[in-house]
Amino acid sequence: MELRVGLLGVGTVGGGVAELLLGEGAALKERTGGIGIRLVAAADIEPKRLASLSAAGVEVSKDAMRVVSRDDVDVVVELIGGADTAKALILEALRRRRSVVTANKHLLAEHGEEIVRAARGAGAALGFSAAVCGGVPVLLALRTGLVANKIASIVGIVNGTCNYILTRMSLGGTTYAAALAEAQAQGYAEANPALDVDGHDSAHKLTILAALAFRTPVALSSVLSEGISGLDVLDLRYAQDLGYVVKLVAIGKRAGDRDALDLRVHPTLLPKEHPLAAVSGVFNAVEITGHAVGRVMLFGRGAGKEPTSSNIVADLVEIARGSAARATDQLAFWIDRPPMPILPPGEASTRFYVRFTVRDEYGVLGSMARILGEHRVSIASVIQKEPHEGDATNGVPIVVLTHAARAADFRAALDEIDACEFSIRRAVFLRIEEA
Amino acid sequence: MELRVGLLGVGTVGGGVAELLLGEGAALKERTGGIGIRLVAAADIEPKRLASLSAAGVEVSKDAMRVVSRDDVDVVVELIGGADTAKALILEALRRRRSVVTANKHLLAEHGEEIVRAARGAGAALGFSAAVCGGVPVLLALRTGLVANKIASIVGIVNGTCNYILTRMSLGGTTYAAALAEAQAQGYAEANPALDVDGHDSAHKLTILAALAFRTPVALSSVLSEGISGLDVLDLRYAQDLGYVVKLVAIGKRAGDRDALDLRVHPTLLPKEHPLAAVSGVFNAVEITGHAVGRVMLFGRGAGKEPTSSNIVADLVEIARGSAARATDQLAFWIDRPPMPILPPGEASTRFYVRFTVRDEYGVLGSMARILGEHRVSIASVIQKEPHEGDATNGVPIVVLTHAARAADFRAALDEIDACEFSIRRAVFLRIEEA
Repeated sequence: MELRVGLLGVGTVGGGVAELLLGEGAALKERTGGIGIRLVAAADIEPKRLASLSAAGVEVSKDAMRVVSRDDVDVVVELIGGADTAKALILEALRRRRSVVTANKHLLAEHGEEIVRAARGAGAALGFSAAVCGGVPVLLALRTGLVANKIASIVGIVNGTCNYILTRMSLGGTTYAAALAEAQAQGYAEANPALDVDGHDSAHKLTILAALAFRTPVALSSVLSEGISGLDVLDLRYAQDLGYVVKLVAIGKRAGDRDALDLRVHPTLLPKEHPLAAVSGVFNAVEITGHAVGRVMLFGRGAGKEPTSSNIVADLVEIARGSAARATDQLAFWIDRPPMPILPPGEASTRFYVRFTVRDEYGVLGSMARILGEHRVSIASVIQKEPHEGDATNGVPIVVLTHAARAADFRAALDEIDACEFSIRRAVFLRIEEA
Repeated sequence: MELRVGLLGVGTVGGGVAELLLGEGAALKERTGGIGIRLVAAADIEPKRLASLSAAGVEVSKDAMRVVSRDDVDVVVELIGGADTAKALILEALRRRRSVVTANKHLLAEHGEEIVRAARGAGAALGFSAAVCGGVPVLLALRTGLVANKIASIVGIVNGTCNYILTRMSLGGTTYAAALAEAQAQGYAEANPALDVDGHDSAHKLTILAALAFRTPVALSSVLSEGISGLDVLDLRYAQDLGYVVKLVAIGKRAGDRDALDLRVHPTLLPKEHPLAAVSGVFNAVEITGHAVGRVMLFGRGAGKEPTSSNIVADLVEIARGSAARATDQLAFWIDRPPMPILPPGEASTRFYVRFTVRDEYGVLGSMARILGEHRVSIASVIQKEPHEGDATNGVPIVVLTHAARAADFRAALDEIDACEFSIRRAVFLRIEEA
């Protein structure tokens, strides 16, 4: 059997997909037990990206809609990115009962319901394995390999740019600004890095991961999202001394007794023995905890031409096998079900790392402990650091690790301590995720 | 649609499968978009294992063949283990055109060709995701998620018993014997641990992993297999000082320029930054390197009731979806192709760790370096350790890390050094796997 593919967007990832389909066709047919995937048409606004495809016998066009409306295309692969144009093309393809493969996490996070509804209505397959973690088969694992499990939590490092920056800050002792500049020089961060460093890209991915893991529609706005741009390298160093590493982590959990979802993206202290703690540089990893399988972690390259192409081609193979339309049945929850309740951010209970900067006076620690205790925040350990600029007027840093506390309680305690006369600077805090 | 299951063997794993199918049926149906899986019959020689199943309406029998020959069974799940009986049951099920799911790595490693041939002949599905690494979806990843890739290597920690023992030896500084006793006390090692500690279990798993990764029949006898029972805790400590951890690792690689397979199971030094180095205790992990995806690692529980059941149920879902029969097409290589050539063990090129025990005399190091050099073994670093029993007659340990060398050259050099008058004990060596 042969699946005929129309490719929209021949940039980095689209170019990788074209190379795989044109260069690996025979090998792919052998590996899949006889499935042929043929690139029949491609569109890009840059004609020079199309030259080599045209030479290889692919019909090329500047107009993506022309590729979508061809009769000889079974599957449309959308790699244009962004929201409006991509959405219109995908919906038109589905209206024509073509299957669709996309890596567009932004679109799925914001308009997942509409797209899934269109796919279900058309009886078409919708593949988006490459939308999260590049080439890592994490969505595949959630959909098939771990299908026997009720998922309790997903915890992931899903943004390579942030992980590169934090790795450089930790290992090199560099500031955030210097590490960002390095990431930009290496091509790991964009000139405008906001989408990555502010945590929005991770929030998009968490939205998709959580939907599949917990089988519920997830609104992007229900994800608490904090980025890494405000991080002080000092806290990374203190964390390290205490046996932790700081990572930007996306967390989705069923919260305690109520079946509410706790969805958060923020810089997080991970104990060094946590499976995610060793994930460095641009790598991604997601830890999934299921009621039967226990903890499973998948690790690999979360972005880039070849890794992302690998997952896109895997989706195409699944569609060719005819198993993807059934997989789309698995997405029915996205349109048929009310969203699960979301845990209000103040209710989320975690351990905290907090650095106070206070006057070096008798009784300060006692006052802080009393205030924390009054807000039901229990101290697990305290370390008073040497003043780091050798000047008493800058105050002394006191680092506290708490036991698990409600975020609202913890924030109230912090506000009260910050207002005390002995506080020289606002307290800086980070959440801790246990191993 | 509904898939009717006959279960052979209701021991630990079989009991877990029964619990999942009986207790999670409705949840499973929802998660899969409408697939029902019903346990209709089960067999075990221990009647008391069947009581609760019988009470739940499952037809039970002491005779496994009776379950296989039922007309209302679509899939036979074989969890009896061992070779002869299990094989006869599986072949009979396939002869009756029933699909088969098994976790029997031993059987697949030894008789894979015959079983795949029978499945292909019957047009039946054959699922064995649980045969390697318990609940970790590593075979799934090789078959589907990474299908776009030409696999260059697989490197795995696939035996939890050995990994537990080595973790205890590393962290606790205990001897092999003490760590084994601990593992037995914890239920992680059997009374007769030979299959695990001698590396045979890992070799079985590598046989299956390599077959799927490289798409070639692999004879169990083509795997070089060395166990951990001869390990001295001293070498784990020296390795640690040098920035390495020692793990029992299963390695499958396409060797250099020739398309030959290098298949080995042996205790291995992994640099601390290697993704597998942090895998401790009973956990398993497999790192797969594909030409597009780069490095991917999957990590999780490699054994036990619930994790293994998780993968078995995933196979059942895949069969119910009808995608598994196509997946069996992917196994055609197992019977249609000649095996890839195997790299002779002497030809495998790796770096080595070696500990010599020599007289504390002038010129010894020079002689050793000369002999190594004559055999084309190049020294990367040398550390002369303090004599560890404070007695010159025991000699001094000299630890050498080599650059990559052919195994045959290295062994020849070692033989020559061992024969020298200055050698007090035979050299102890371990291979190094680069990060």
